[in-house]
Amino acid sequence: MSGSPSLEPGAALNAAQIAELVSGQLEGDSEQLFTRVTDLAHAEPQHVVFFRAGADAAGRLPSNEETQAFHDSKAGLALVDDTVEDPGRPCVRVANPSLASAILSRHFEVPQQYAPGVHASAVVANDAQIDAGASIGPLCVVSEGAVIGPGVVLVAQVHVGPGVILGAQTILHPHVSIYERVTLGAGCVVHSGTTVGAPGFGYVWSGERHLQVPQVGGVTIGNGVEIGTNSCIDSGTFQPTEIGDGCILDNHVQVGHNAKLGRAVVLCGKVGISGSTKVGDGAVFGGQAATVGHLKVGAGAKIAARGAIMKDVPPGAVVAGFPAVDIKQHQRDKVRLRRLLRDADKK
Amino acid sequence: MSGSPSLEPGAALNAAQIAELVSGQLEGDSEQLFTRVTDLAHAEPQHVVFFRAGADAAGRLPSNEETQAFHDSKAGLALVDDTVEDPGRPCVRVANPSLASAILSRHFEVPQQYAPGVHASAVVANDAQIDAGASIGPLCVVSEGAVIGPGVVLVAQVHVGPGVILGAQTILHPHVSIYERVTLGAGCVVHSGTTVGAPGFGYVWSGERHLQVPQVGGVTIGNGVEIGTNSCIDSGTFQPTEIGDGCILDNHVQVGHNAKLGRAVVLCGKVGISGSTKVGDGAVFGGQAATVGHLKVGAGAKIAARGAIMKDVPPGAVVAGFPAVDIKQHQRDKVRLRRLLRDADKK
Amino acid sequence: MSGSPSLEPGAALNAAQIAELVSGQLEGDSEQLFTRVTDLAHAEPQHVVFFRAGADAAGRLPSNEETQAFHDSKAGLALVDDTVEDPGRPCVRVANPSLASAILSRHFEVPQQYAPGVHASAVVANDAQIDAGASIGPLCVVSEGAVIGPGVVLVAQVHVGPGVILGAQTILHPHVSIYERVTLGAGCVVHSGTTVGAPGFGYVWSGERHLQVPQVGGVTIGNGVEIGTNSCIDSGTFQPTEIGDGCILDNHVQVGHNAKLGRAVVLCGKVGISGSTKVGDGAVFGGQAATVGHLKVGAGAKIAARGAIMKDVPPGAVVAGFPAVDIKQHQRDKVRLRRLLRDADKK
Repeated sequence: MSGSPSLEPGAALNAAQIAELVSGQLEGDSEQLFTRVTDLAHAEPQHVVFFRAGADAAGRLPSNEETQAFHDSKAGLALVDDTVEDPGRPCVRVANPSLASAILSRHFEVPQQYAPGVHASAVVANDAQIDAGASIGPLCVVSEGAVIGPGVVLVAQVHVGPGVILGAQTILHPHVSIYERVTLGAGCVVHSGTTVGAPGFGYVWSGERHLQVPQVGGVTIGNGVEIGTNSCIDSGTFQPTEIGDGCILDNHVQVGHNAKLGRAVVLCGKVGISGSTKVGDGAVFGGQAATVGHLKVGAGAKIAARGAIMKDVPPGAVVAGFPAVDIKQHQRDKVRLRRLLRDADKK
Repeated sequence: MSGSPSLEPGAALNAAQIAELVSGQLEGDSEQLFTRVTDLAHAEPQHVVFFRAGADAAGRLPSNEETQAFHDSKAGLALVDDTVEDPGRPCVRVANPSLASAILSRHFEVPQQYAPGVHASAVVANDAQIDAGASIGPLCVVSEGAVIGPGVVLVAQVHVGPGVILGAQTILHPHVSIYERVTLGAGCVVHSGTTVGAPGFGYVWSGERHLQVPQVGGVTIGNGVEIGTNSCIDSGTFQPTEIGDGCILDNHVQVGHNAKLGRAVVLCGKVGISGSTKVGDGAVFGGQAATVGHLKVGAGAKIAARGAIMKDVPPGAVVAGFPAVDIKQHQRDKVRLRRLLRDADKK
Repeated sequence: MSGSPSLEPGAALNAAQIAELVSGQLEGDSEQLFTRVTDLAHAEPQHVVFFRAGADAAGRLPSNEETQAFHDSKAGLALVDDTVEDPGRPCVRVANPSLASAILSRHFEVPQQYAPGVHASAVVANDAQIDAGASIGPLCVVSEGAVIGPGVVLVAQVHVGPGVILGAQTILHPHVSIYERVTLGAGCVVHSGTTVGAPGFGYVWSGERHLQVPQVGGVTIGNGVEIGTNSCIDSGTFQPTEIGDGCILDNHVQVGHNAKLGRAVVLCGKVGISGSTKVGDGAVFGGQAATVGHLKVGAGAKIAARGAIMKDVPPGAVVAGFPAVDIKQHQRDKVRLRRLLRDADKK
């Protein structure tokens, strides 16, 4: 482990350094310095690839094409697990090649760096508190009372509303809008076009018009939360909408007012979490899945793509369909239905 | 009623003033001044809560937990209807506690105020007409020929295209884009990232490529329309796409070219109204619901979440499913299908 | 054909000029100069309309109302095909009235023009290469190493990341965000709020958190691609996500990392193409349709609105449903199911 601390981000590594970085066992050796992780088809001798012959976490086996591509790859080093008998080149054995490749790629691919300071074209309120180590890019707006922590990056054209608090190292990409009464923790990433803290969709019919209920609860986002592009996290009514530590949200996701997500929740593209719904730690929603409001989705539950949650989901349940039911029942029902329709066809 | 006009927005109120403001009957009394409306769990003695023991407009009764929370709440005043027998503290009796709470909360929660004038960093065309009472925030663009009414607020980083007309008191939040040939009425609110007036998705195959049909009808939006974040209202082809007075649209809503919404239509999150579809006054679309183009949805129709409208919907109809059918039939069908599948399972 | 090259964009045309422009045959004549194409109901004598009495490409016949509107229209000239027996006014016979109307309307409706040069309020990196004929509008950001071709327009408030390459005549509307490692070809149009090149949704569970896999492949977009508002094209992991020449994408579309679209693909509103899926030339996805990842959709395939692609789709197939199956089977299944449910009801 002694070498790891001195690895300069982005530096080429030899096989031994790679094995150490990913906590794997080197088999064979190579004088080659490696410069990046890449895919099987495009790898050159100075590149690293990863492969497993057995089933991955989702139970998927590599296709014959993929296996052939692995053997044909020009990569000089492979990250593999024990299911790969003959890697055909020097390799590093690891328990989880995907994870190892991510760790290694994160070493090689150094993110864009941003110089600290406030760009001359940014518009910053007098009483905003901006850490000297923060980078406020061109044409950003930072409103009165905002508190911007060390290492925060507002890439460009970001809007930070009144009183917003941004934790250390959080990065907001162009055209992100943060409304008032929002707190983001440390190490968050919010991508372009996403909005946080706009008022939730709360109206009462007055007899003449839809009267908006003030939404003043704001949003509280934990540490290490990553949100894709053009997503929307709405302000709570009286108390904050909450996103727990380490949640990851894809593009076009909507989290309604008063919703509460636990830790490390995964929301894939176009998911909609309706108002006041609570989602437990580690739950996973597939693309286009949605909930009605005021429900509880238990920790570790998995909602298949386009699943529609109409009632509480127990912890650990795996559900699918509209309305979403246990996925095994859902699949049995599909088979039965197909049989019924086929039989009906014969009559 | 004499007191109401003199209530300063945001000011603390006593129970009698509150009863007057919401047109209710005070039971019991209190010297306490109240400062906000909030939820049962977080209320303090200087707060007001609201509760009903009977079914709400949607037929939903409070859960036992909610009833207990009401009785346990520390709130000093409650807005209740006649279904609540023992409010356990001073109360104001009203016909509709939700509505009363909204009215009261709108008194307490004073929206962010914006100083009139044009921020030095905004880029405004010479011939744009900007009322002296309008507020053009930092880094906005107002294009040639735009007409900005009194009290209009462009919060920051808004784009207003050529010739756009914005009615009095309308507010556009950061990163809103208004294309040319768009008119918004008075008192509208458009939230961050929403686009109005981009060309509708109209193409003709030329034999070699998809040829865009010019979309020059623009968009006409009435008074008091409120639109959430990252929604899209497209320009009509020859005549304007229309949004009637008092419509409310949530996030990620798309209204296609040439669509016409009547008054007070409700479009929940991720709804898609396809091109040339007409929606009558007061119709309500649940989340992810969608229509194909060139249809008519009657006034007061209700479309369940994710309902897919494939043919005209009569006024007042309540429909669900894909394709959407009368909701009672939809529910009967679900029950029958479940029975059929269960029976199939037994064989 | 001799006259066409000299037609000044936007100029009024007489019937003979129109016939020549759209390669049609003039029947009857008119001294009238025509100024625009418009719809039947709003046309005046100086306007041109289009109509067909037979089925269009989608097999749809005009309604009686539409036929009446055609005959009642005040339009001075009609673009019609051979299915229209009595146009009731001078007409130009063409094979495809829709196409002819698009060509003619594109003559009349001259797009907003933008003066070349860099607006004083734009923030442009020293080493960005900007063609003298490009127009960089107010409050845009052009980052280091970007290459902006001739005739490119950044309307306003656009963000162009490091090293981005924009081909000739491409136009980016307000609040578009282009991340690093993105190339757009010539003649593309990207509408407001759309993001290109944000990292794909690729994570590995580390045992403690979701660890982002660097997404450094970028995006390569061909020529003549048109993208609506608030859509998202994500960066590939190691190699670019690809959008082929002439694709058209509507609003709220998501194209996941490593996806590859062929030429002239059509993605309607809210479509989601998951990671690593390949879509062949000319395929068409209806609104809200989606795919799971790692699939192949063949050239010319048609996916009905809200279709959910769970396995490969052969070239030319027409599919619908969830999971999507051949549309004829889908429709037969719907009919059978309805019969089964009706029969069940009788028991």
